[in-house]
Amino acid sequence: MQQDAQRRAIPPGAATAPSSATQAAGGAPPHAPLRIAVYPGSFDPPHRGHVDIARRASHLVDELVIAIYATPSKKTFLFSTAERVALWEEALAEEGVTNARVAPFEGLIVQFAREQGAQAIVRGLRAVTDFEYEFQQALMNRNLAPEIETIMIVTALNQLFVSSSLIKEIARLGGDLNGIVTPGVARAMRARLGQ
Amino acid sequence: MQQDAQRRAIPPGAATAPSSATQAAGGAPPHAPLRIAVYPGSFDPPHRGHVDIARRASHLVDELVIAIYATPSKKTFLFSTAERVALWEEALAEEGVTNARVAPFEGLIVQFAREQGAQAIVRGLRAVTDFEYEFQQALMNRNLAPEIETIMIVTALNQLFVSSSLIKEIARLGGDLNGIVTPGVARAMRARLGQ
Amino acid sequence: MQQDAQRRAIPPGAATAPSSATQAAGGAPPHAPLRIAVYPGSFDPPHRGHVDIARRASHLVDELVIAIYATPSKKTFLFSTAERVALWEEALAEEGVTNARVAPFEGLIVQFAREQGAQAIVRGLRAVTDFEYEFQQALMNRNLAPEIETIMIVTALNQLFVSSSLIKEIARLGGDLNGIVTPGVARAMRARLGQ
Amino acid sequence: MQQDAQRRAIPPGAATAPSSATQAAGGAPPHAPLRIAVYPGSFDPPHRGHVDIARRASHLVDELVIAIYATPSKKTFLFSTAERVALWEEALAEEGVTNARVAPFEGLIVQFAREQGAQAIVRGLRAVTDFEYEFQQALMNRNLAPEIETIMIVTALNQLFVSSSLIKEIARLGGDLNGIVTPGVARAMRARLGQ
Amino acid sequence: MQQDAQRRAIPPGAATAPSSATQAAGGAPPHAPLRIAVYPGSFDPPHRGHVDIARRASHLVDELVIAIYATPSKKTFLFSTAERVALWEEALAEEGVTNARVAPFEGLIVQFAREQGAQAIVRGLRAVTDFEYEFQQALMNRNLAPEIETIMIVTALNQLFVSSSLIKEIARLGGDLNGIVTPGVARAMRARLGQ
Amino acid sequence: MQQDAQRRAIPPGAATAPSSATQAAGGAPPHAPLRIAVYPGSFDPPHRGHVDIARRASHLVDELVIAIYATPSKKTFLFSTAERVALWEEALAEEGVTNARVAPFEGLIVQFAREQGAQAIVRGLRAVTDFEYEFQQALMNRNLAPEIETIMIVTALNQLFVSSSLIKEIARLGGDLNGIVTPGVARAMRARLGQ
Repeated sequence: MQQDAQRRAIPPGAATAPSSATQAAGGAPPHAPLRIAVYPGSFDPPHRGHVDIARRASHLVDELVIAIYATPSKKTFLFSTAERVALWEEALAEEGVTNARVAPFEGLIVQFAREQGAQAIVRGLRAVTDFEYEFQQALMNRNLAPEIETIMIVTALNQLFVSSSLIKEIARLGGDLNGIVTPGVARAMRARLGQ
Repeated sequence: MQQDAQRRAIPPGAATAPSSATQAAGGAPPHAPLRIAVYPGSFDPPHRGHVDIARRASHLVDELVIAIYATPSKKTFLFSTAERVALWEEALAEEGVTNARVAPFEGLIVQFAREQGAQAIVRGLRAVTDFEYEFQQALMNRNLAPEIETIMIVTALNQLFVSSSLIKEIARLGGDLNGIVTPGVARAMRARLGQ
Repeated sequence: MQQDAQRRAIPPGAATAPSSATQAAGGAPPHAPLRIAVYPGSFDPPHRGHVDIARRASHLVDELVIAIYATPSKKTFLFSTAERVALWEEALAEEGVTNARVAPFEGLIVQFAREQGAQAIVRGLRAVTDFEYEFQQALMNRNLAPEIETIMIVTALNQLFVSSSLIKEIARLGGDLNGIVTPGVARAMRARLGQ
Repeated sequence: MQQDAQRRAIPPGAATAPSSATQAAGGAPPHAPLRIAVYPGSFDPPHRGHVDIARRASHLVDELVIAIYATPSKKTFLFSTAERVALWEEALAEEGVTNARVAPFEGLIVQFAREQGAQAIVRGLRAVTDFEYEFQQALMNRNLAPEIETIMIVTALNQLFVSSSLIKEIARLGGDLNGIVTPGVARAMRARLGQ
Repeated sequence: MQQDAQRRAIPPGAATAPSSATQAAGGAPPHAPLRIAVYPGSFDPPHRGHVDIARRASHLVDELVIAIYATPSKKTFLFSTAERVALWEEALAEEGVTNARVAPFEGLIVQFAREQGAQAIVRGLRAVTDFEYEFQQALMNRNLAPEIETIMIVTALNQLFVSSSLIKEIARLGGDLNGIVTPGVARAMRARLGQ
Repeated sequence: MQQDAQRRAIPPGAATAPSSATQAAGGAPPHAPLRIAVYPGSFDPPHRGHVDIARRASHLVDELVIAIYATPSKKTFLFSTAERVALWEEALAEEGVTNARVAPFEGLIVQFAREQGAQAIVRGLRAVTDFEYEFQQALMNRNLAPEIETIMIVTALNQLFVSSSLIKEIARLGGDLNGIVTPGVARAMRARLGQ
């Protein structure tokens, strides 16, 4: 992909926040346009609602970084960090999203976003309880990193009722996840749960 | 689309909306980055919460269009469409936002957004009831114009309790709006309400 | 299934509500089963979300009465009571709902429900603000008529963002209502709004 | 009322759902009326709010099945599945509900509902957060089993503040549960918690 | 005002309000205890939920001022300001609340509260939408008058579903308001609505 | 504690709630004014939002008791009960709140409030989910102790996004808590988390 190639061509020293070409080209734009956004989550596993948000967000930025929460020990995930990275990469390829890449992160998402040179954090919204949690997180992240904005996007209608935890519960009980997760995730869940 | 043509015609050194490296370099990016967003509202009058959202959104796009709802007859506004345009332009100048412009619109916002070549509609969020209304509007707008995404941004903390209708009520009762609206809007309200 | 067999075996004289095994075992059933429900609203106009709720509710009762709020003067409706009755009847026919009928009502819905011999009031839910309003109405109606229960049904996903007032606003602004209202309602709205 | 008369007059052979006048006028009814509903929950323990919902729902159906979630291992309940079945049976007898029976279930509730021949799942609602959870569950269950409808009933006012987890907390701290749970449940909790 | 006079008459050494150790240790107490609160509203008409909040708040203060919104022209009330004052006075007498008085107010409630020497504004809460409105009002009032605190009290359970607008609607439709409003208000509404 | 001693020193005849001037003047007051309130919580650790609520509540009462939930075993706290008491005492001294004292409690908060002679329980509110939880708790506590009222106060705007659990998460990830907790709590958290 040409864009990625260009970005990769940025010399290492320039790297930390070498965001827009305009800036690299010289003139100081009054505002840096949104070049990079991170879309953070546990994604254990990613489902079609997640992929839909990623696809929508990918239309709004030059590069979208799917940021996979890779906590070392505290929580037990169904899939390892490497597996969740692979499931996302497969889903993005299936969906034809070419300007997104997947990366694990530890620590604060605002710190990771800074390291990525991102100007925005993307969050999907399904419901009021989502909103309140996201509202609190957005305000705390703004307090920690005022230069990074949180933007919220409404989930696709046919994914409004989906969550990773509900998916795992249904999979364990033998329910049909067709249409809720991608075929790759469905295969991985059957393999993991021995069904 | 004429607007894209216009943008491409901007010479490399020119500042205003010189968008992405990819485009400047020539090749067709796989996804069009967010260049233009509209921020619609009645804004009767605009307050600091509105201006804050505009400032935040202006960091994420090349051009932000403040879209002022100019309904011909139905509703009685305190300020005319031209006055609301002027109040916004003054507020943007005070705030130092240079990549936003103000325009009235009638009809559906998605139609106006299309005419502006916008990829996104920006909405500010204060509370759960805001969210539910915006949620419904975002879904309806997605139904009417699937290619335009609604992005929601959380209002600044010290503006969470502000709304245009509450401001008008307080102004009528002689309350102090200092810190809630810009000096220009405060002057205009005093002049209009004869205080 | 044994239970169905039992029900079919109930002799004619056992009659009105010969339902569970316990009841079949002897005396008059302690509770009359749900035979009739009313589904009240202004329905100005009815949209696909309304029709979907009616279809779902019609599966749960012997007879569903679509109760159209026919206020004499207070409120200005786009369609007259007779027009709204006709639009509903056309929509029910299109949808193939055969155990529903349409009737205007004035006064309290609980009084109308009593006159219809209904045991339940049906309400569709889209969102939290809907829920709070319906919650209050359900409690007030229970206070006025304790023997009538309000049952709430979640609206179909692809109608979550639809309301009659939003439909009228979009129709006035020339937006496309395809998929949101039935063809009959779309025709009626175009005729009424002169488009 | 004429309709009731008609219903009583239906001959035995016309059978399964010979309900409304329209249907009585001719052939097989297009929709099976609600005969059976399941009311699922953990019910650890059941409280008066639960019993109230069961009583209300029992008025709307021929048979109500109290479906007690009997997870084999994952979660630690205060009462065993058999104990919760017994507590419900005692509560139903106290309340005089004769067309309900109690059964444990594992797996998906929609699968259990299908096995019971139920057309509906009943859920009680107390608050907005309840509603959002129930909303998500109802949509997921509709996705898994489109022929089964979820109907929501508002909890009795004097039980709005009650939940099984709050009851257990209060019981552990020695609080008075009189009026919140049935005498049988109160006895069982005292016995279990050694008070 | 008699009560104020009484309070001023307390000799310096008397124990009455200097409760905490710090205060007893000598000087002027660092904080004036809550002596006066205002409970504002339109109260058109007052209902039992309002009276319940007033009774509860009266237990927490020396003097409660029921502040009746007396807008000169804008809004059409069912009852005049004088009538609403009289209905409240009758209700307080019926309820046996002796440390509350009723007064009309115009303008900002915080200005009225200051004039009354109040330290707090009391608001009743029924539901989430109430809460959001009250939240916004409380923050705006704190912005206008930081020294006055808003305290919120949950409405009595059996009044959760009651609002003045719902009461007027039911009264117009001939519904029974017994238990929802006091006998005096019921009489006044029948007289006003000619029933 | 001296204060308790003073309260106990009230002669028997002056009795139950001998507080306000009105009462001292002789006549039996119809309602005991608010002298004492408890502000309960886990406070693990207390943050500036908590301290802000305590400061506001301290203006409304003679004595505020910060009631620290001291559960013996069930839950793992970051700070011991004694540490949380000390952190609160330091925070109150920093804030200059002189009519509050800190005390651990076990069991039901209404029982503790009764033992303290309190007429009210104070709770801070940040958001809708807070409200619903507090609503349920307030109704349950009213059921357990009808003579004690719960009063809710809106948290300061710049603390709306803060919670003890979020603070612990951020501290573990190395985030900056400046402005969110008092210096004393910041020091204690760094010491505890070994940073």
